[in-house]
Amino acid sequence: MTLGEIAGRTSATLTGDAGLAISGIASAANAKAAEIAFLDGDGKTPPTLSPHLKAVFANPAMKAFVPEGVAVLETPFPRHAHSVVASALFRPRHLTGYGAEPISSLAQIHPDAVVQPGAVIGPGAAIGEGAVIGPAAVIGAGVQIGCNTTIGANASIHCALVGDHVTVLAGARIGETGFGVLVGPSGAEDAPHFGRVIIQDHVTLGANSCVDRGVFEDTIIGERTKIDNLCQIAHNVILGRGVIVAAFGGISGSVRVGDGSMLGGRVGIADHVQVGERVSLAASAGLFRDVDSGETWGGTPAKPIRQWMREVAWLQKQANPKKSG
Amino acid sequence: MTLGEIAGRTSATLTGDAGLAISGIASAANAKAAEIAFLDGDGKTPPTLSPHLKAVFANPAMKAFVPEGVAVLETPFPRHAHSVVASALFRPRHLTGYGAEPISSLAQIHPDAVVQPGAVIGPGAAIGEGAVIGPAAVIGAGVQIGCNTTIGANASIHCALVGDHVTVLAGARIGETGFGVLVGPSGAEDAPHFGRVIIQDHVTLGANSCVDRGVFEDTIIGERTKIDNLCQIAHNVILGRGVIVAAFGGISGSVRVGDGSMLGGRVGIADHVQVGERVSLAASAGLFRDVDSGETWGGTPAKPIRQWMREVAWLQKQANPKKSG
Amino acid sequence: MTLGEIAGRTSATLTGDAGLAISGIASAANAKAAEIAFLDGDGKTPPTLSPHLKAVFANPAMKAFVPEGVAVLETPFPRHAHSVVASALFRPRHLTGYGAEPISSLAQIHPDAVVQPGAVIGPGAAIGEGAVIGPAAVIGAGVQIGCNTTIGANASIHCALVGDHVTVLAGARIGETGFGVLVGPSGAEDAPHFGRVIIQDHVTLGANSCVDRGVFEDTIIGERTKIDNLCQIAHNVILGRGVIVAAFGGISGSVRVGDGSMLGGRVGIADHVQVGERVSLAASAGLFRDVDSGETWGGTPAKPIRQWMREVAWLQKQANPKKSG
Repeated sequence: MTLGEIAGRTSATLTGDAGLAISGIASAANAKAAEIAFLDGDGKTPPTLSPHLKAVFANPAMKAFVPEGVAVLETPFPRHAHSVVASALFRPRHLTGYGAEPISSLAQIHPDAVVQPGAVIGPGAAIGEGAVIGPAAVIGAGVQIGCNTTIGANASIHCALVGDHVTVLAGARIGETGFGVLVGPSGAEDAPHFGRVIIQDHVTLGANSCVDRGVFEDTIIGERTKIDNLCQIAHNVILGRGVIVAAFGGISGSVRVGDGSMLGGRVGIADHVQVGERVSLAASAGLFRDVDSGETWGGTPAKPIRQWMREVAWLQKQANPKKSG
Repeated sequence: MTLGEIAGRTSATLTGDAGLAISGIASAANAKAAEIAFLDGDGKTPPTLSPHLKAVFANPAMKAFVPEGVAVLETPFPRHAHSVVASALFRPRHLTGYGAEPISSLAQIHPDAVVQPGAVIGPGAAIGEGAVIGPAAVIGAGVQIGCNTTIGANASIHCALVGDHVTVLAGARIGETGFGVLVGPSGAEDAPHFGRVIIQDHVTLGANSCVDRGVFEDTIIGERTKIDNLCQIAHNVILGRGVIVAAFGGISGSVRVGDGSMLGGRVGIADHVQVGERVSLAASAGLFRDVDSGETWGGTPAKPIRQWMREVAWLQKQANPKKSG
Repeated sequence: MTLGEIAGRTSATLTGDAGLAISGIASAANAKAAEIAFLDGDGKTPPTLSPHLKAVFANPAMKAFVPEGVAVLETPFPRHAHSVVASALFRPRHLTGYGAEPISSLAQIHPDAVVQPGAVIGPGAAIGEGAVIGPAAVIGAGVQIGCNTTIGANASIHCALVGDHVTVLAGARIGETGFGVLVGPSGAEDAPHFGRVIIQDHVTLGANSCVDRGVFEDTIIGERTKIDNLCQIAHNVILGRGVIVAAFGGISGSVRVGDGSMLGGRVGIADHVQVGERVSLAASAGLFRDVDSGETWGGTPAKPIRQWMREVAWLQKQANPKKSG
């Protein structure tokens, strides 16, 4: 697809080489040559740009940040225009990839794997030795399930590579489209997702928990990470090895959590936050800032645990003079 | 059914015309003639009453609020008695409406709709052009699914009208009975539900999220409203157009949220609260009061965001004198 | 299995009678003769020990707490060694107990029960008179479902006894393995679970809620207890009769809640906490301490509601001097 064709499809105004060929989509920070990116914002914060960037959608406010020599497609809806190109170049085979049979004849299922009644397995899926696919579970087209991995009843997995000795409990959702709202000419639209979910070996994912697929890159759950029931792991999150996430844990988009960190029940982490290794977050913490390795934080908004406890105790003492006097 | 028959079935004491015919049930605020309502409470707060109210169950404490000319059925368990009448008049066909075949021959499925393996579709359901029903998804009797709407794997929909271009992700639950506990002679009972769920066009509902059916009226999700994973939308809620609800959002019964409002992750709203248009609620907020259009609130209990941030900063400064001195 | 064989399999160092026969596993507090237990910890807190204890795994720090006459198997990974013995003695038939047919011919289904299309029922399951098993629901091997009980669409039940007149809404997960991480020679592992879930009569469990099976003992939900959508009830929890748990309620492992207590939306209770009867916990409360019968608590960390409200009001007044002056 040329930039000229892209400008036509998206009603964007092109400044640059109309003949430049585009074969992929990416974020502005990671774009390679032949990949188109987008810049959306209020023009106050300079974006991170890949040195290989050759073409970018931008709204009027962000246009000034585009370096010389990079083609610009100006539009009031850069993210929407980007998704139009993405959908033209790629066809996500999430739910439309199934055939007529519950267990596709185009799936590769190891003879020592067990597929329970009611399970659905799409074409191109591969199920490893000793794996168990639970009753009424759904394994999407092209999904890889490793050896000795167990998928619980009514769980569903799409757009994912799942390692060995993984346990996915009943009702868990892996690989659904993440939550991204973009503004198009008609109002709010869902941002299309093209990434996968990578679940490394020995991971456990609790009942009714969700791990969304990445937008352009992948969502990754590191080896021996253990996630409780009813947790939400958003798009592009990277959890390290041996991370513990207790029930109702909510990890927003693009968060990174280092090896061996422990999240108590109902901990929330805001998007793009970076958490180091061996960090502890107390139950109910709401974290909005980066935390260095080895620290323990609590409270909402979260802060170092001693500081939080000091504030809790001080407030209690001040507000209840008789009891604590 | 006459009031006399109703009094007999519910062991209530009737004051009024025993021959009055009742053909429906409603809340006291919305009852039309021929609909019976109930009044339950401690007698301290006057109820809102429909001008068309003709007959009502009431406990001794609430009896005094019944206007002259309205028949009263006195009972210690008015809500329970009301549900007994409701169940006699209406037969909710939630789970018992299926036939023997997975895809009912009494369902209307457009030839250009796709029904994936393992899906179950009840009698009287209608599936529009271009719709995709995912593997092992369940579409209940009489449910309407619009054009180009996608229902994810293992999702279930009952008692609902779903518009066009709607996306329901895997494991979402639409139209289950809401959470209402009433006290009957034997203890706690579930309040029966007779309303539906209305999902307007271009709505997205995240994985494993729930939208309960209304008690008497309907639960309504407005056009282009986008709801993330693991959210709970309770009975009788009305969300406007273009509302954004991030993960773990919890919206209690009968709440109204105006057009374009945005709820951060893990926001909770207490029942009957009214939220205006273009309101922002910060992540983790717990809202117990009405909020006017255009405001931004945060904290638990939630308050205007500047006030909340001032309190957080002030407490931190006071309790940690050295660091901030 | 003798202690000598057990020492060999687990690479533990035995001090005691190598010929002693072991036929079961238990916690140290509840072990009967012929059951092996484990002691794991830093050696600072003395463990509770059953008077019938005859053999126990212990790490070097805990060894000193083992009474004379009790055989000790010393290992750096006592809980892991214990799980190795457990898995050798018992074969949990969670997901591998299904046959080839969706409705097992070895299940006992009352002729007046209704099984909807797509449901899967394992061998040895029993479904009572008037029960309804919803579409694509999964009933595991050996599960008992009482009379007039309704199981919603896509729900799954394993390792459980479910009473009469119980309502399980769509997507609920009963009897999944609880969240317990133990440290083995290769890193984090899931603790095996051998207990069941007992759901007493007239209980309601909301859509997409989870009740985990017990580790050694059972998880128990008392009569007429009502649980809303998206709640998490962890392993070994015991809820009394008529307990109310609103949406997003999170009850951690081994918590006990007395009869008639009410938990508002998004209440969390930390593990092992004991809550009395008729206790009220305000919405959003995070409870880390025991609460006596009849009290009302709120806030995070939760405290008596008057104290919490006093602190909220005092902080607001101090930090916003003009408005409240």
